[in-house]
Amino acid sequence: MRIGGVFNIIGKLLILLSLFLLTPIPFSYYFADGMSHVFVLCSGLGALSGGIILAIFAPEADLGYRDGFAVVVLSWLGLAFLGALPYYFSGVDYSWVDCYFESMSGFTTTGSTIFTDIEALPESVLFWRAVTHWLGGMGIIVLSLAILPLLGVGGMQLFQAEMPGPTKDRLAPRIQDTARILWGVYLLFTLLEIFLLMLGGLDFYDATCHAFATLATGGFSPHNASAGHFQSAYVEYVILAFMFLAGINFSLHHRALWTGKIFTYWENEEFRLYLTLIGAATLIILGVNMFHHVFTDLFSGFRTSLFQVLTIITTTGFGTADFDQWPAVCKLLLVSLMFVGGCAGSTGGGIKVVRILLFFKYARLQLRNLIHPRAVGAIKMGGEKVPREVMISILGFFAIYIAVFFVAGIIVTMTGVDILTGTTSVIATLNNIGPGLHLVGPTQHFGHLPATAKVVLIFCMLAGRLELYTVAVLLTPDYWAMARKPVWRWELNRQRLERAEAKGEV
Amino acid sequence: MRIGGVFNIIGKLLILLSLFLLTPIPFSYYFADGMSHVFVLCSGLGALSGGIILAIFAPEADLGYRDGFAVVVLSWLGLAFLGALPYYFSGVDYSWVDCYFESMSGFTTTGSTIFTDIEALPESVLFWRAVTHWLGGMGIIVLSLAILPLLGVGGMQLFQAEMPGPTKDRLAPRIQDTARILWGVYLLFTLLEIFLLMLGGLDFYDATCHAFATLATGGFSPHNASAGHFQSAYVEYVILAFMFLAGINFSLHHRALWTGKIFTYWENEEFRLYLTLIGAATLIILGVNMFHHVFTDLFSGFRTSLFQVLTIITTTGFGTADFDQWPAVCKLLLVSLMFVGGCAGSTGGGIKVVRILLFFKYARLQLRNLIHPRAVGAIKMGGEKVPREVMISILGFFAIYIAVFFVAGIIVTMTGVDILTGTTSVIATLNNIGPGLHLVGPTQHFGHLPATAKVVLIFCMLAGRLELYTVAVLLTPDYWAMARKPVWRWELNRQRLERAEAKGEV
Repeated sequence: MRIGGVFNIIGKLLILLSLFLLTPIPFSYYFADGMSHVFVLCSGLGALSGGIILAIFAPEADLGYRDGFAVVVLSWLGLAFLGALPYYFSGVDYSWVDCYFESMSGFTTTGSTIFTDIEALPESVLFWRAVTHWLGGMGIIVLSLAILPLLGVGGMQLFQAEMPGPTKDRLAPRIQDTARILWGVYLLFTLLEIFLLMLGGLDFYDATCHAFATLATGGFSPHNASAGHFQSAYVEYVILAFMFLAGINFSLHHRALWTGKIFTYWENEEFRLYLTLIGAATLIILGVNMFHHVFTDLFSGFRTSLFQVLTIITTTGFGTADFDQWPAVCKLLLVSLMFVGGCAGSTGGGIKVVRILLFFKYARLQLRNLIHPRAVGAIKMGGEKVPREVMISILGFFAIYIAVFFVAGIIVTMTGVDILTGTTSVIATLNNIGPGLHLVGPTQHFGHLPATAKVVLIFCMLAGRLELYTVAVLLTPDYWAMARKPVWRWELNRQRLERAEAKGEV
Repeated sequence: MRIGGVFNIIGKLLILLSLFLLTPIPFSYYFADGMSHVFVLCSGLGALSGGIILAIFAPEADLGYRDGFAVVVLSWLGLAFLGALPYYFSGVDYSWVDCYFESMSGFTTTGSTIFTDIEALPESVLFWRAVTHWLGGMGIIVLSLAILPLLGVGGMQLFQAEMPGPTKDRLAPRIQDTARILWGVYLLFTLLEIFLLMLGGLDFYDATCHAFATLATGGFSPHNASAGHFQSAYVEYVILAFMFLAGINFSLHHRALWTGKIFTYWENEEFRLYLTLIGAATLIILGVNMFHHVFTDLFSGFRTSLFQVLTIITTTGFGTADFDQWPAVCKLLLVSLMFVGGCAGSTGGGIKVVRILLFFKYARLQLRNLIHPRAVGAIKMGGEKVPREVMISILGFFAIYIAVFFVAGIIVTMTGVDILTGTTSVIATLNNIGPGLHLVGPTQHFGHLPATAKVVLIFCMLAGRLELYTVAVLLTPDYWAMARKPVWRWELNRQRLERAEAKGEV
């Protein structure tokens, strides 16, 4: 593991983030919330710390795939650290753990919040929350579609062949090409949603905040009533449409837009299951709630059901209804969908539809083998045989998932949190959703949890977002045993100087 | 699938069960509860129905391993039917679904009850409940150690080589030999527990009922306060010791008793994890409850903690304390242990310790492979490499488990049951434990659940007890497509007559 090269990249990312820290300043002036100096300060601190890191660690060209684990985990940890500063300096009395929780919730596109009264916060700070989502979403796309497949983890290794960009190449150019193409789609959708929301009467600020939170499947809203604030069916439909899009594999979007063939979506087996799950869950929830007279109107009931199903399955976490008050079967269905999550290669979290699909294909194959033991079966997806390594990796994923869920649940409830709040808070953060049930339900927040529980949940957000393996690898001693001495910048400079002197150039 | 041969076996089992239906009669006379005629009637009905089945279906010698699935599932369904009759005729006003629930709960050694006031029931009926447990436990031992390995399912396929009895032989003699050896151990433990409980002051009736329920890891007690009724530390220690033994692989007991080497246990990796889990969970629960002043005395607190951990991990379900009132972390820990269950080849239910062990060994191997991709690793247990088929079968098991859990949970909550009661009632029945949390907690019962929920839970008990695969196979159309016309008894008789006539014997 090349520690120096890894830190060098993180230094660059910090400087990049410090530029984004300037974006809330126009809003600060517009709303006159007096926060502009805070963002200038934070941006300066970011640039400074990034600069110091770059001055210490020289870049190393030959980063291998193993270094990718450290780059990913440490950059998320570092950026969330810098991103937490505006909350800490915003003048509101929150602890550092709270601010870091909020920032990590933003960058991991989780959307769990510790703020009790969101609207009491300065507008520019709320805009910053949305920006962390949007950047997190960008990070996730490039992570899941360009980096993780190279590392051999994440559901997307299945689609290696389907991915845009050159395939056999060095790490950096490959990632850059893929990122450029997919970010194009991401940006296009974001602009389109901002435009459509403004058509619905939202101002630029509200439209941008919600578009950022939607496309990243984050769920931070600048309003206490979340997306329900606008009381507009049109706005809800726009948001739910883009949640639906954000939960789909972005390389699928790219291909569909590139070729102009809308049927590209339907040909994808993961997409079909995603659509089926959404349809079935919406109908059941609508039916049960109509039956129990929770909904009085079929049309608004349909909209509310579809919105909640999408907000949960895509792991966005916007609220338009307090589903904690719905009949138990609806709650259980929504909690089950929390585990499913979006498609692989989307900005959604959770286990991912493709893993669930393969898991059950495997079970079916097993049953068939019991009846016809000599028949050699294979699992196919989209007509292609799924390699054995992929199935092995999925089994391992479930094992780590269950282990993290269990350990986190035990620690959180050990801090005195009740069993339903404790387990659903772990589910909500590990799957990057946002709200859970009971004391962390859709109308509640995470602020009242003990600090220990928050630290555990921060870990869950990160582990869930980085597909578990990435974080788990970094926790093994084997990984750190491979660490190499960094290339110090001054050493590099000294070498250069010596070479120049040898050539007589100085 | 040889339908005729399968039914013939079930006919024989019904006749066997009708003999056991006579065992409560002495208790009925002793307690003068006026139930003896009911048991005579039920026994007669059992013998009659068994006789009719035997008169219709001739035996078929060449039953294959596929027929084993049908034998196992249909015999559990049929015996539970006959076993439900005494409840139905006991004069208490319970519906047929309730009686079948109670009977299935007995034969699957689950221990969930629908009776509100157990002590109001006739003593002989309560004795019958214990007998169903004991017979169910016998069935499970022969099922998990002799039949399922031949069918290629269940955790015990791992221990094929370690199993007593001749290995390469026809189905029937092999099963009979294995059964004889293991039932010897089972009977020995039962008699020993009865003796030790009577030493503690229990009468023969109480001692037998509790010994039957302990060894089968069932949990039916003839007292409302369950094992807590006797208020005796000695009795609790005896019961917890035998719960501990009942949760261990019976072929391990056999080898240890045969060779006299107590170290045989420790050499077994599954046993070591079983012991570790029990120790760790007991210490955490003791610590948390002492900290929160739920326990005031360290020694009685230790006993209560250990008892609850054992009653849950072995899936017995005896109560000495209402753990639903304990801090959330204790409840979550106990719910987690509910999934673990006993060792493979024990009478305990659940997922089984060995599956959990292999699952996490797999995850560890996966992480190691990510760091050293070229190193070829293998999963070992007890020094032996675990074959790939076993790992595949475990993955399939988890997939079916999750599917059953999800579908059952949705249906049960759909009947209007709250989310905690609904999910824990599925967990408690699918893992054959007995009590869940909230409205089905340790001091509660299942009687108040809607009939639909009860039917689903009956299915869960059966599916969980028969290691899921067995039941799942029977639900596939492929299986039934292979069914063959039965050999009718009258046809067989006619053929015999013709042969005899041809030989001139008649």
